Amino acid sequence: MLGLNRMIAMPLLAVGLLSAAGPALAAEADSRRARGEETLSKITGIKDKKLAEMVIGTFASDLGEWVLDFAYGDVVSRPGASLCTRELATVSALTALGSAPSQLKLHIEGALNVGCKPDEVIEIIIQMAVYAGFPRALNAIGLAKEVFEKKGLVAAKK
Amino acid sequence: MLGLNRMIAMPLLAVGLLSAAGPALAAEADSRRARGEETLSKITGIKDKKLAEMVIGTFASDLGEWVLDFAYGDVVSRPGASLCTRELATVSALTALGSAPSQLKLHIEGALNVGCKPDEVIEIIIQMAVYAGFPRALNAIGLAKEVFEKKGLVAAKK
Amino acid sequence: MLGLNRMIAMPLLAVGLLSAAGPALAAEADSRRARGEETLSKITGIKDKKLAEMVIGTFASDLGEWVLDFAYGDVVSRPGASLCTRELATVSALTALGSAPSQLKLHIEGALNVGCKPDEVIEIIIQMAVYAGFPRALNAIGLAKEVFEKKGLVAAKK
Amino acid sequence: MLGLNRMIAMPLLAVGLLSAAGPALAAEADSRRARGEETLSKITGIKDKKLAEMVIGTFASDLGEWVLDFAYGDVVSRPGASLCTRELATVSALTALGSAPSQLKLHIEGALNVGCKPDEVIEIIIQMAVYAGFPRALNAIGLAKEVFEKKGLVAAKK
Amino acid sequence: MLGLNRMIAMPLLAVGLLSAAGPALAAEADSRRARGEETLSKITGIKDKKLAEMVIGTFASDLGEWVLDFAYGDVVSRPGASLCTRELATVSALTALGSAPSQLKLHIEGALNVGCKPDEVIEIIIQMAVYAGFPRALNAIGLAKEVFEKKGLVAAKK
Amino acid sequence: MLGLNRMIAMPLLAVGLLSAAGPALAAEADSRRARGEETLSKITGIKDKKLAEMVIGTFASDLGEWVLDFAYGDVVSRPGASLCTRELATVSALTALGSAPSQLKLHIEGALNVGCKPDEVIEIIIQMAVYAGFPRALNAIGLAKEVFEKKGLVAAKK
Repeated sequence: MLGLNRMIAMPLLAVGLLSAAGPALAAEADSRRARGEETLSKITGIKDKKLAEMVIGTFASDLGEWVLDFAYGDVVSRPGASLCTRELATVSALTALGSAPSQLKLHIEGALNVGCKPDEVIEIIIQMAVYAGFPRALNAIGLAKEVFEKKGLVAAKK
Repeated sequence: MLGLNRMIAMPLLAVGLLSAAGPALAAEADSRRARGEETLSKITGIKDKKLAEMVIGTFASDLGEWVLDFAYGDVVSRPGASLCTRELATVSALTALGSAPSQLKLHIEGALNVGCKPDEVIEIIIQMAVYAGFPRALNAIGLAKEVFEKKGLVAAKK
Repeated sequence: MLGLNRMIAMPLLAVGLLSAAGPALAAEADSRRARGEETLSKITGIKDKKLAEMVIGTFASDLGEWVLDFAYGDVVSRPGASLCTRELATVSALTALGSAPSQLKLHIEGALNVGCKPDEVIEIIIQMAVYAGFPRALNAIGLAKEVFEKKGLVAAKK
Repeated sequence: MLGLNRMIAMPLLAVGLLSAAGPALAAEADSRRARGEETLSKITGIKDKKLAEMVIGTFASDLGEWVLDFAYGDVVSRPGASLCTRELATVSALTALGSAPSQLKLHIEGALNVGCKPDEVIEIIIQMAVYAGFPRALNAIGLAKEVFEKKGLVAAKK
Repeated sequence: MLGLNRMIAMPLLAVGLLSAAGPALAAEADSRRARGEETLSKITGIKDKKLAEMVIGTFASDLGEWVLDFAYGDVVSRPGASLCTRELATVSALTALGSAPSQLKLHIEGALNVGCKPDEVIEIIIQMAVYAGFPRALNAIGLAKEVFEKKGLVAAKK
Repeated sequence: MLGLNRMIAMPLLAVGLLSAAGPALAAEADSRRARGEETLSKITGIKDKKLAEMVIGTFASDLGEWVLDFAYGDVVSRPGASLCTRELATVSALTALGSAPSQLKLHIEGALNVGCKPDEVIEIIIQMAVYAGFPRALNAIGLAKEVFEKKGLVAAKK
């Protein structure tokens, strides 16, 4: 059984579970995981062990593994749309939904990291005033200001 | 007073009101209106009088005027992001919010009309499974299928 | 036990349950129920048995009873704000939430029934373009148009 | 009239109002209140006066009274579903809605208090990644981690 | 490249892609797929080819594959919570979110199919009146009535 | 082009842009701006330069200009509904949407500033328990308590 003990005490990768099922499963899992880590690394600018620690952690680590394997390994890594297009889509959606500020900041920074122009990021956030109302656009632009200051794109307020 | 009578009985443009305020106001209004009509025309493929009728109608026509003057004249017409980038942002946001199916269809078609690749439209919709859950992504992809069939991009089901 | 049988097969009022607990409970319940029916009757223009049938029905009838006893008996019947103010608040909220069109229509009509001016109803709906985005305001104004046509406040389109 | 003065200055129970209506109303109200307090006490582990103070407070106290009388007295106390099933339903809904973190923490702890297994709580939160998107599931799991650490179910991070 | 052609024209399973990557990937994929199909089959009562057709279809079929492989293969199939507990969690969340009526109906029926008691399903839906408001609870109970009538649990209205 | 440099470095009013287009545009813009500033000043109690600084700032200042010109100049300044009715509509909507606490506080205070009775503000917030659920009503009433204490309408807790 895959109980709480495993969820909490597991090391980063569910190696044991996968190797029990033989090399085939480990190979497929490794390929999704590697693709997910590479894509998320481009978005966050964080690499290797530090990235896995950030995403997977030591609590309910299976959710973190899905972030790498499914969200970034299966979905965001796909060809058919550039990483900039994908990050702008995510920034738009999180601005419109309005209740995940820390993820929104991560993806505003992510959009800049994968080569979107600063203008593009600002434009699609303020455009959300039309589609999701001014309060959500204003809250998102406040978060964008923090990211832009952190990255030195605008002078921080004194 | 700008009461219900005006809102309901007004002809398409609030010419009377604006001209009462002199040529200056009419000029500014005309410029935002013209820009909004041009942009929305590129998105919808609908032109001239038919577009104004669709948007402004004869009920609460001031809301329709804001669509042209503010939403498309002031916001979506801005430089700094391409019309394709803007339409993909809108498709992402409406997919994530999940409660405006007719507008979502309009902007899925709009994204194709302004030059986004069909792949890009599909990719950012299915990406929303990650950020807003599968039910909203599945509902949006169902609407996309209708649009793609209408535009002959896929064979309609018999 | 208050099982499914009761929820489904019950006649309109849970008389049996209440009378089992003695006259005291019945009296309190009757007072909330009577107040709720009176308030909802003012809002909908529907009276007596037809109102109870509409609200309580024969399926999960306890939810319908809460509508009368709690929502309209305890909350909406309170002094401290006029029924028009309350209906405009409800119209604003349902416009902004965007996913309960039949209730929104009921309360647009309700606002008119309890004496709000047609202008006020339109104004607060189109104001929601600012606070919840244009798609939700446009969808609500479409519902308002249906209600206004039904009540003869505007000519129905041919 | 039931004005602001009453709402703000009232002692915990609206005794005056109810006794004015005679012993019948007080009896019904007492029974709903007692049931609500007992159920909420099982969920929160807080008892008696402290519970009433927490819920009702001294500002807009009528809203707090509805929490006890309606939400917990009428609804959550019903037979037909166990308290664990009800708390898991609430945790799922608040995870999916994503904008009431303090209530979500209270009900994560509540689910554990009424006998849900820790695994069950974690499982339905991470399942929400599928139905409401990863950002809301990740935010909820962060709150769950705080509750689990407080209750000693996992070691707190140093 | 995994372009639109593949997304649209692909047969139900992405066999070609997977077999190109060797037997290892196919084995892992088969195991997630098989688990997902089995779980979704228990929920829907639909089996084999018909289930895959319903979920995957011929448009944007990769989204449908994620439904089987990730949503039902990785997530909903996990031990740690019963299928009834999981379906009730989904019904609660979709009732609260209020904008996916067809999925909500599927999971109301799913909850009954995997052994939840009819009372439990009704109880957690009406409980959502407390946590997400009456309009969303009322809309969900209307859908539940349709499902209960279809399954013969209540007499359909004439 | 209206790039990031302009958005960030611009002084409060886009004077240059407008004057380039001649006196006509400046006149129309001035009239919307003046109306917006006057209305928002009544709502916030903040005047002149301080108001413009608060709203427009120095980052993405075009969004702030739309707040004054469109949101308050075009929409909230309209006749047809009193400023109190408009502020109560906004408070209802933001309570129901539940994810813009700082704007909600501003409009709770705004409702009091434009002459709504304290009772009315409290009543429509607690009414949202019915239409958007208790968690959002409780969170809003917590914000209202802060505003009422700040304005000396209730004694602050020690």
